[in-house]
Amino acid sequence: MISEKMKFYGNAPSVIRELFEYGKMRAGIVGAQNVCDYSLGNPSVPAPAFVNEAIRDIINTMHSKAVHGYTSGAGDNGCRQAIAEDLNQRFGTCYSKDNIYMVNGAATAITCCFKALTIDETSEFIAIAPYFPEYDVFSGISGAKLRSVSADIPDFQIRFDELESAINGNTQGIIINSPNNPSGGVLWEETIERLAGLLTEKSAEYGHPIYIISDEPYRELVYDGYEVPFIPKYYKDTLVGYSYSKSLSLPGERIGYVLVPDGMTDGTDNVFFAVAGAGRALGAVCAPSLMQRVIERCAQQHVMPDLEPYIENRKLLCEGLKAMGYEYCDPRGTFYLFLKAPNGDSEKFAEMAKARDVIIVPGEVFHCPGYLRLSYCVDRETIEKSLPRFAELMKEAKQ
Amino acid sequence: MISEKMKFYGNAPSVIRELFEYGKMRAGIVGAQNVCDYSLGNPSVPAPAFVNEAIRDIINTMHSKAVHGYTSGAGDNGCRQAIAEDLNQRFGTCYSKDNIYMVNGAATAITCCFKALTIDETSEFIAIAPYFPEYDVFSGISGAKLRSVSADIPDFQIRFDELESAINGNTQGIIINSPNNPSGGVLWEETIERLAGLLTEKSAEYGHPIYIISDEPYRELVYDGYEVPFIPKYYKDTLVGYSYSKSLSLPGERIGYVLVPDGMTDGTDNVFFAVAGAGRALGAVCAPSLMQRVIERCAQQHVMPDLEPYIENRKLLCEGLKAMGYEYCDPRGTFYLFLKAPNGDSEKFAEMAKARDVIIVPGEVFHCPGYLRLSYCVDRETIEKSLPRFAELMKEAKQ
Repeated sequence: MISEKMKFYGNAPSVIRELFEYGKMRAGIVGAQNVCDYSLGNPSVPAPAFVNEAIRDIINTMHSKAVHGYTSGAGDNGCRQAIAEDLNQRFGTCYSKDNIYMVNGAATAITCCFKALTIDETSEFIAIAPYFPEYDVFSGISGAKLRSVSADIPDFQIRFDELESAINGNTQGIIINSPNNPSGGVLWEETIERLAGLLTEKSAEYGHPIYIISDEPYRELVYDGYEVPFIPKYYKDTLVGYSYSKSLSLPGERIGYVLVPDGMTDGTDNVFFAVAGAGRALGAVCAPSLMQRVIERCAQQHVMPDLEPYIENRKLLCEGLKAMGYEYCDPRGTFYLFLKAPNGDSEKFAEMAKARDVIIVPGEVFHCPGYLRLSYCVDRETIEKSLPRFAELMKEAKQ
Repeated sequence: MISEKMKFYGNAPSVIRELFEYGKMRAGIVGAQNVCDYSLGNPSVPAPAFVNEAIRDIINTMHSKAVHGYTSGAGDNGCRQAIAEDLNQRFGTCYSKDNIYMVNGAATAITCCFKALTIDETSEFIAIAPYFPEYDVFSGISGAKLRSVSADIPDFQIRFDELESAINGNTQGIIINSPNNPSGGVLWEETIERLAGLLTEKSAEYGHPIYIISDEPYRELVYDGYEVPFIPKYYKDTLVGYSYSKSLSLPGERIGYVLVPDGMTDGTDNVFFAVAGAGRALGAVCAPSLMQRVIERCAQQHVMPDLEPYIENRKLLCEGLKAMGYEYCDPRGTFYLFLKAPNGDSEKFAEMAKARDVIIVPGEVFHCPGYLRLSYCVDRETIEKSLPRFAELMKEAKQ
């Protein structure tokens, strides 16, 4: 007798992972160079050289116990302070180490936030579809309910009528993800302001704060000079979950943080304790120590990602597809392009693409049918090879 | 409104951590050399040189994406296979990568096991006191109940009469930890055999397996030629939680695994899926990638800890205290000595020791009053300096 729910989570086929495996299988038959695999969001840009230089220097100069020993549960003070100061410089805030709780990447960050804010099984959260499907799993562990409301298409902002109807006295938070996986869209400043206004009003109505959980692993991956509004400046009851997986191309190293800003309605200390307690209960206390030392140095030096390869890929892909008549969400950030299925049926279109060895993910996975996600964190050759196939697919779709 | 339970977990004073902070405070006043701090189980032996050599070689020779990119959720196949083969060579087993699920250290390993085996809020687990107090938190996240039964003192084996009474139809598992934190004791082979017999009988009686969760971070830290029985060889429905925190002195790096042996009653695949699903739901999927590469090499080379400093400390401490008339649990493994309070009152004795700047942890923390834990992963000088104070404490206790 085991937990059937956990067994399901462990055994449930991930559509994205299955597509990736299919692509590898096809590569074995037709050759990897003939498969255009847009399935996974694994950064194609290497980690900045600074990262490995920092690792070398740390293990060469610091004592083993300092490098590989336990940090405090909330993380190493030096690392936390460096992150706070980096944020302060960039966003004009006044954070200190006491606002930063180190975690094992975005998954832990979001799970801790859900857990910290869940009162009991009546607690509810709201996500704006399209959204990362693991949110369903991460909220599930807390026993909370995750409701889904739609983005307004084609702008991929928030449908405020739907959102307002979905909020009730049990609503503990709204999770947003901007720049967005899978759409590549960014919430505009006016959207954030309107969201803050609505939540302020609803919090007053129900007599308790409705939090924003801002999932921001793509914060630094934006293009064309677009700016990503820094959510805590617009709404005080915001928890930020951050990960260095995408921005520093360190997805395997599981390093990130939860930011608990000052001035929260429930008391910043209280909320910080709840986040820290969730980390402890989830078995996630103390983020990987060597990586904390590396991140401390990266934050001190304000190391930023090399976006050039993504910029080139985005240009090539967008211009190519646009010329063929494809429509897509305005791709302001991330390394995803969210393509409208020209035949109106994203699952069928994904199958048609598969038949031409072009691997793309149907929007159903993200609770947004009618669209398809292309992860353009790939080699340039993949895009070049795929464009004629997309031209054929458009013809086929229009037949 | 936030989770009061998580707030409590985040804010609850850890006695061990408070003692450590007290020791640091005193060090600021009387000088670090005058404080004998036995509070924390942080390995004093550096990680084997092989670890940093492996890190250097990996970052110098492998591509960034291979080093720092996502591994599969269950871990990198090469790392998992190397661990399986290391176990096979040492214990005569026939495991493969499919038996190994990589996790972020022992905390995640145990949390995943509890979560995988919890059916609903009626599910129960049993721990043998003294036990690591975080078990209460790790089982709490699953909603399961953790019952405590006593070890038989002074042998620190299992009180089978108490254990048998505690087992009922809701019992899903027994968590054991041998070599044991805090007692330093090791379960004898005859104890394991008797435990396996009882659980086999009870599993048949209740119609479902009662699992052993074997928490084994100290497996390699044993002395005087004692052997630690390998639990899956005695009882098939065993999950092993392992961490490299203590054996390779890598507590900060959060790397370990859950072993799901073949031939489990519920089906090894099913149990593996449940463990993997728990990891996913806990936000713990994909253990730190660079460290997985390091562990792969350590497992291939069968890298073992340098026990010499612990052996010397243990000898000095045990002989010194024994000559003064102290009694303690037979310290076969770990780097803890579990001392009987000579005045019969462990909390009071800990206070008396504190007054002499000797920091030791009362057994109440581990649900075992009357004893005190000394972590002898310290400098030799700490032990030398503490012995005269222990002599004074014995006199004081006898007054």
